[in-house]
Amino acid sequence: MTLSAATLADNIRFGLRTAREVIETTLHTLETHDQAYGCVTRLLADRALRAAGLIDARIANGEPVGPLVGVPFGVKDLFDMEGIVTTAGSTVLKKNPPAVRDAAVVRRLVAAGAIPVATLNMDEFAYGFATENSHYGTTRNPRDTERLAGGSSGGSAAAVAAGMLPVTLGSDTNGSIRVPAALCGVWGLRPTQGRLPLEGIYPFAASFDTIGPFAGNSTDLKLAFEAMDGKAGGEEPDVGALRVARLGGWFERDLAPGLIDGIDRIMGFLSSTKTVGLPEVARARAAAFIITASEGGNLHLPRLRHQAPEYDPATRDRLMAGALLPASPIIQAHRLRNWFREHLHEVFRETDILIAPATVGPAPRIDQPTITVGGEAVSARANLGLFTQPLTLAGFPILAAPIAPGAEPVAELPLGVQIIAAPGQEQALFTLGAALEHAGLLGYPVRGAAGQGEN
Amino acid sequence: MTLSAATLADNIRFGLRTAREVIETTLHTLETHDQAYGCVTRLLADRALRAAGLIDARIANGEPVGPLVGVPFGVKDLFDMEGIVTTAGSTVLKKNPPAVRDAAVVRRLVAAGAIPVATLNMDEFAYGFATENSHYGTTRNPRDTERLAGGSSGGSAAAVAAGMLPVTLGSDTNGSIRVPAALCGVWGLRPTQGRLPLEGIYPFAASFDTIGPFAGNSTDLKLAFEAMDGKAGGEEPDVGALRVARLGGWFERDLAPGLIDGIDRIMGFLSSTKTVGLPEVARARAAAFIITASEGGNLHLPRLRHQAPEYDPATRDRLMAGALLPASPIIQAHRLRNWFREHLHEVFRETDILIAPATVGPAPRIDQPTITVGGEAVSARANLGLFTQPLTLAGFPILAAPIAPGAEPVAELPLGVQIIAAPGQEQALFTLGAALEHAGLLGYPVRGAAGQGEN
Repeated sequence: MTLSAATLADNIRFGLRTAREVIETTLHTLETHDQAYGCVTRLLADRALRAAGLIDARIANGEPVGPLVGVPFGVKDLFDMEGIVTTAGSTVLKKNPPAVRDAAVVRRLVAAGAIPVATLNMDEFAYGFATENSHYGTTRNPRDTERLAGGSSGGSAAAVAAGMLPVTLGSDTNGSIRVPAALCGVWGLRPTQGRLPLEGIYPFAASFDTIGPFAGNSTDLKLAFEAMDGKAGGEEPDVGALRVARLGGWFERDLAPGLIDGIDRIMGFLSSTKTVGLPEVARARAAAFIITASEGGNLHLPRLRHQAPEYDPATRDRLMAGALLPASPIIQAHRLRNWFREHLHEVFRETDILIAPATVGPAPRIDQPTITVGGEAVSARANLGLFTQPLTLAGFPILAAPIAPGAEPVAELPLGVQIIAAPGQEQALFTLGAALEHAGLLGYPVRGAAGQGEN
Repeated sequence: MTLSAATLADNIRFGLRTAREVIETTLHTLETHDQAYGCVTRLLADRALRAAGLIDARIANGEPVGPLVGVPFGVKDLFDMEGIVTTAGSTVLKKNPPAVRDAAVVRRLVAAGAIPVATLNMDEFAYGFATENSHYGTTRNPRDTERLAGGSSGGSAAAVAAGMLPVTLGSDTNGSIRVPAALCGVWGLRPTQGRLPLEGIYPFAASFDTIGPFAGNSTDLKLAFEAMDGKAGGEEPDVGALRVARLGGWFERDLAPGLIDGIDRIMGFLSSTKTVGLPEVARARAAAFIITASEGGNLHLPRLRHQAPEYDPATRDRLMAGALLPASPIIQAHRLRNWFREHLHEVFRETDILIAPATVGPAPRIDQPTITVGGEAVSARANLGLFTQPLTLAGFPILAAPIAPGAEPVAELPLGVQIIAAPGQEQALFTLGAALEHAGLLGYPVRGAAGQGEN
């Protein structure tokens, strides 16, 4: 189960192993090893085994199969999965009827041959950066189980980092794919906002909600994205011709030395010394907070009137505060949003790629969930999005990738970068990501075999 | 002055005429003929003649000149022009200091050699579809001066239709480029939202504000857009390979026969029988109304507290109502917006181009400013955006183009279509527009010579 999705699919396609073997092994791994991590909220064993049987029959009959044939995957627990209730990480929705069909992107992955095997843990209603969930527990970071996996798609990132699943799905409203990808040392993509359909996804803040994949390497990430996108990837740009800049100012503060060094090495490899500063980043982050809180609050207000005590306290208080916001700051946040996005369009007239850190440093400890910003220890749950939240405003596609651990990998915790392109330019992200992976500058090995040698 | 921008620039570049001659003729035409139309609010004679002199000197010295060298253009009166006060069609701002520099896109046109010669009439603060302005008068449609030019960029559309200017600039929040382009029989582009910078543009509703050019033909429109965009146009798609569909349902109701026939002919030429229906179009339009009113109201509220009597009554009442909206409907409008945009992204998985009417019919009479919707006469000012407003929500690029008048052009009033592509795909719009123009299906001649033979 430490094989990549691409290799797994090839093996199954060419009969080196059956889909059933792969799924049985995966289910066994999840059953036996996930207790150390707390990624899984529900196993989809019956469904997965049935799907594997059908795929094996197709292959035996010589019928064509998709690019992800037999590849097991998991979904953050806010993707509709036919026949079960979508929890969105809460118990508030438990009386909802089961979903009548899979979410649209799940259907596309299934059409490409992939097999869903589990739903995965998250912050309640995706409102947090910690995956500390009062109903379903805390997801532990497979790189150091005393540390947070990050959130809100923590179960999805950690399941890949632990080598339990080659591909998972998450959602990113303010950084919920990028933060846990960085802290767990895996690859994640927040696509161009609006590019992938949200049908069958439990919403949070409609102005920002975006879904995307996690994987252990850039090839698998691209395979998963293209299956969900349903279009050919388009022309690969010439890496040497890409104009790359790093983000300065706000995005250079408080950084762990490994992040500075990792970005230096990437810029050196790309022979770029260009730094770009963005204006009004603090206000951009505040605008993201306001829009998120007000849209989340508006969405939940009817339910909060009757079920408030059932909410996770940390989620409930912020949703209620958001529901009380008057129109004026919300409108002003949207005004800033449009201004900021337009500014980013202008930046992309002179550059093709921006590089920024994903977080200030490695995963915080679970028993001390703080990070250091401006010399002060602040709540990790609220502040891990320091670098991801402002960029959310623009809706541009962002690849989160782990910096390669370098010469002394032992005990080094993962650190991640954000690689940003203009809307619709996911292909440039994949091409650059693969080149940097090939050069040994990006990429962090997933655990040797799931459950072996964990701390 | 009935030459196209492309021909004018060629003539000047190769010495067939001087920039000074062109500008003098243009200023004379505007001075003598605009009284029939009411397009111009201010002439920029000194500045224009000075710029022409500099260009002629450059050419005499054999220095390189831009693609729009010597081409006169006008701007809707909400683009900052160095040294004069930006009115935004109001007298409320008259005590503002003069603009210290041109708007960003004006600077780019000037860098390409174009010469601004006039500011042009509009609905106050761009809030209307009529260009009936209580301070600066009503702009008359050059195709029939008893009729409205449409708005809010009415002066910009009419100046091109009258053959007074080859290129003008406007803004489109809910249809303010597309509606007057259609009613005046000229070409207009609402680019992908965020693609062109709004720096130096008086704002209205930040969530929708978009600026773009008007021109008398597709070649000039493309030249103007590319000068403002500052990037090479990208690859031209193969017209035969474009998957084209017409919008049905909402967009088929109440249409003038000429519109049905015109779209039929276009679809026939493209050998497409595909019709696509969009969901929840009425709600999409309502969402556009709510977001526009609330953002406009929020923007103007501080000024309305002190200067309300100076506002145009029709504008004032809607801005005050918008400022009173509570957060809940605004948030719900944004939620619908994101859902609708995502749906449109899904539609563009199966198609490359959508075609829809721009209005239900030709320009309404000034003395009876109504249009017929569902058998009822309703206010033109509020309802001319019936087909443009819902599409505003998505932010996709839309070309407005006049249907060719066909076999019996005499006295036939212009009708326009919207041609819609996915974000960033302006090139596809220009390529298809040019092909349909070449085939005689799109395009409406600008007036023979400005001021000759008007009604």
